[in-house]
Amino acid sequence: MEHLEQHERMEMWEKIQKALVDEQIDQFRAEFLELHPYDQAKIFEEQDEDIRFLIYSYLSPEEMAEVIEQVDRDFVEEFIIEMVPAFAAKVMEHMSTDDAVDILNELDKNKVASFLTIMDKKSSEEIKELLHYEEKTAGSIMTTEFVVINTQMTVKEAMRHLRKEAPSAETIYYIYVVDSLKKLVGVISLRDLIIAEGDWLIQDVMSERVVSAPVGEDQEDIAQMMRDYDFLALPVVDFQDHLLGIITVDDIMDVMDEEASDDYSKLAGISEVERSGDTALSSAKKRLPWLVILLFLGMLTANVISRFEATLEQVAILAIFIPLIAGMAGNTGTQALAVAVRSISTGEMEKKGKVSVIWQEAKTGLITGLSCGVIITILIAIWKSNIFLGLLVGISIMATLLVATVSGAFVPLVMHRFNIDPAVASGPFITTLNDLISIFIYFGLATAFMSFLI
Amino acid sequence: MEHLEQHERMEMWEKIQKALVDEQIDQFRAEFLELHPYDQAKIFEEQDEDIRFLIYSYLSPEEMAEVIEQVDRDFVEEFIIEMVPAFAAKVMEHMSTDDAVDILNELDKNKVASFLTIMDKKSSEEIKELLHYEEKTAGSIMTTEFVVINTQMTVKEAMRHLRKEAPSAETIYYIYVVDSLKKLVGVISLRDLIIAEGDWLIQDVMSERVVSAPVGEDQEDIAQMMRDYDFLALPVVDFQDHLLGIITVDDIMDVMDEEASDDYSKLAGISEVERSGDTALSSAKKRLPWLVILLFLGMLTANVISRFEATLEQVAILAIFIPLIAGMAGNTGTQALAVAVRSISTGEMEKKGKVSVIWQEAKTGLITGLSCGVIITILIAIWKSNIFLGLLVGISIMATLLVATVSGAFVPLVMHRFNIDPAVASGPFITTLNDLISIFIYFGLATAFMSFLI
Repeated sequence: MEHLEQHERMEMWEKIQKALVDEQIDQFRAEFLELHPYDQAKIFEEQDEDIRFLIYSYLSPEEMAEVIEQVDRDFVEEFIIEMVPAFAAKVMEHMSTDDAVDILNELDKNKVASFLTIMDKKSSEEIKELLHYEEKTAGSIMTTEFVVINTQMTVKEAMRHLRKEAPSAETIYYIYVVDSLKKLVGVISLRDLIIAEGDWLIQDVMSERVVSAPVGEDQEDIAQMMRDYDFLALPVVDFQDHLLGIITVDDIMDVMDEEASDDYSKLAGISEVERSGDTALSSAKKRLPWLVILLFLGMLTANVISRFEATLEQVAILAIFIPLIAGMAGNTGTQALAVAVRSISTGEMEKKGKVSVIWQEAKTGLITGLSCGVIITILIAIWKSNIFLGLLVGISIMATLLVATVSGAFVPLVMHRFNIDPAVASGPFITTLNDLISIFIYFGLATAFMSFLI
Repeated sequence: MEHLEQHERMEMWEKIQKALVDEQIDQFRAEFLELHPYDQAKIFEEQDEDIRFLIYSYLSPEEMAEVIEQVDRDFVEEFIIEMVPAFAAKVMEHMSTDDAVDILNELDKNKVASFLTIMDKKSSEEIKELLHYEEKTAGSIMTTEFVVINTQMTVKEAMRHLRKEAPSAETIYYIYVVDSLKKLVGVISLRDLIIAEGDWLIQDVMSERVVSAPVGEDQEDIAQMMRDYDFLALPVVDFQDHLLGIITVDDIMDVMDEEASDDYSKLAGISEVERSGDTALSSAKKRLPWLVILLFLGMLTANVISRFEATLEQVAILAIFIPLIAGMAGNTGTQALAVAVRSISTGEMEKKGKVSVIWQEAKTGLITGLSCGVIITILIAIWKSNIFLGLLVGISIMATLLVATVSGAFVPLVMHRFNIDPAVASGPFITTLNDLISIFIYFGLATAFMSFLI
């Protein structure tokens, strides 16, 4: 069976819809619960409010929890709020702790407090603990539902323990081992556990080479670590090596996706990732900060050109190549920036050394600059029958591309040095900087060699 | 134990280096094999050629295979080629089939043929099969080392089979079930298998809701599916539902990373992702295509402005705001483009409907345009003491931002419709398009209202 395609979902939707309208609860449950929770969530999301309320009354909190875990994060808040609070609290009790925490983090503080009061004590305490951790750290994405065994158990005892814990644990494929002080001392994969003899001690079969993350570690670094080491789960510890929780690979895939969207948006000059639930006004709010900064930076550029007004009045034709030169500078800079940001975030920059990266960019800029300079000189010389104008633009392009390429790599390096996320030195900023540089070069050359142009 | 930090790696490196220089093979093996293969690979990559040759002679092909699997893909080709061919062939035999195929795909055809002849028959046949599949499809990233059981086995028999296969299988956490015709009919997780009673039949405990991917499916779609459904592995089938291989989550994380780099590079106008092994010349080659296209597009812009030369000669001051207006248009367009490309690739676009997306972008463009227009009008009116010039630029900015925002969303939609990857309609292209539009608006307005300016 393929995963549900749009048309299959429509068919299913109609069947389920019919069951709901006819208030055929058994029919609905039979069809709906047969689906993967992801598909349940997609169908649920498409329903109108009155149908959603029917669904809340047809499903148990436990069943609803599975649906809510898979619902798009942009809508989840709305659904939780519209439920009867006691039902919502029960739903969150049955969710993975980390997912419940994600939802509560989006709600206002009074709502959170009231939900925590209605919840059973165990869940609310687990959740309260996780709510403390800063966003985007290991603590905020870990779950506390994991299987832990101790060094003195036999393989057989461990397997028995595992069977009991399996239904509620987030993963059972890595089992973490703690000593009598509850410190993390080892790990054993289920693969190794099922191969081992039943009467061996865990401490003899476990691996002591257990990799863990401190609770305050950045989620992006954790994603990279899990990708590098091919881990399905990673234990999270405090500074005394006490096991606090685990991070599973499915959460890490969401982190990777989130971070990629984030870098992508920053390169495009959007301060925060836009979500599907955004209105035009909230989209505009996310885009305006950069646009207003650019407006002021653009005034700077205008100011620079206005200093060359005398040159412009003498040779008005110079103006027509302004967008070409500024545009080339901006784009080259963005290319170099993108490469630099990537190589900083993958750690390649460290390895190769900053000087050699800048040197390589300079060579790259020289090659692209020479190529484009020669082409444009020929084009303009033919078009305007003016070899000097062609040379002026060509040389400007060459110099501009060289400088813009180097600055595109240099600026994120400097930012990184001062602990500013280099992705923020995004396209728009580099573009404006390079606009300025390119215009200085172009009009500077034009003013110096004016006699050849008129 | 934390994963190896740079300084720990240095320490380890020194120890291992010393063992190598002293030709202490036992010492080297004791230190080196204690490490996670990822760390082994990082240390190995940093060695000079003569030391690498020592390592080849100190490790078995099986041990070397684990290292090579973790080596950066940019270097792996070089290492395989420098090994004695018989050793290299043995190393590839011991690698996961999918990883071996990745390497062979990078080598030239004669080399591949000669490696396949030296390899043992089973490995070379498995590899040959995988070499057929197109790059970036399910077939190219799947592995053929998986555990398969049939419907008629008991749970106990299945566990016994699993214990035997566990050491060589890529994952044992999902076990796929086939019928007597070798068709995929079910799946059971190891979690469910260890909970089940020993004498139950697999067909009674397996889930029949098995999600699979056709062998030609695009890797990006598979990544999305695995992320949505939280799968650790996904079976790959032919059009008759025969099980061909499986894709594991660790390979999917690499795919996600690759696709994110790819989108990021395209937004920056780089035709192909640059790698750490690239020389300045090869970097330049990847960046030049867009730059040359832009050069020609820039000539178009120059041509448009040159049509307004008469206006420019009368009011030279108009030129100073060209970069500001063109820059704002370009950046707004890139923002809208980035949002559109993301929402196309996540499927949100389909869900919301194209008309409503464009309409929302138009409203967003109106808000940002009005805000920026008012600000710039005031700034210029004060700076140049010329309210008409301020209004001209302000109104141009407003109109430009509106049009640029809509076109930034519209162009990728059109491209998507014609099955062109919308990520290719990247920043640089939209920027130039919007340069053109903005200059038309600006000079058009200036020419029409010339009487107010002079």
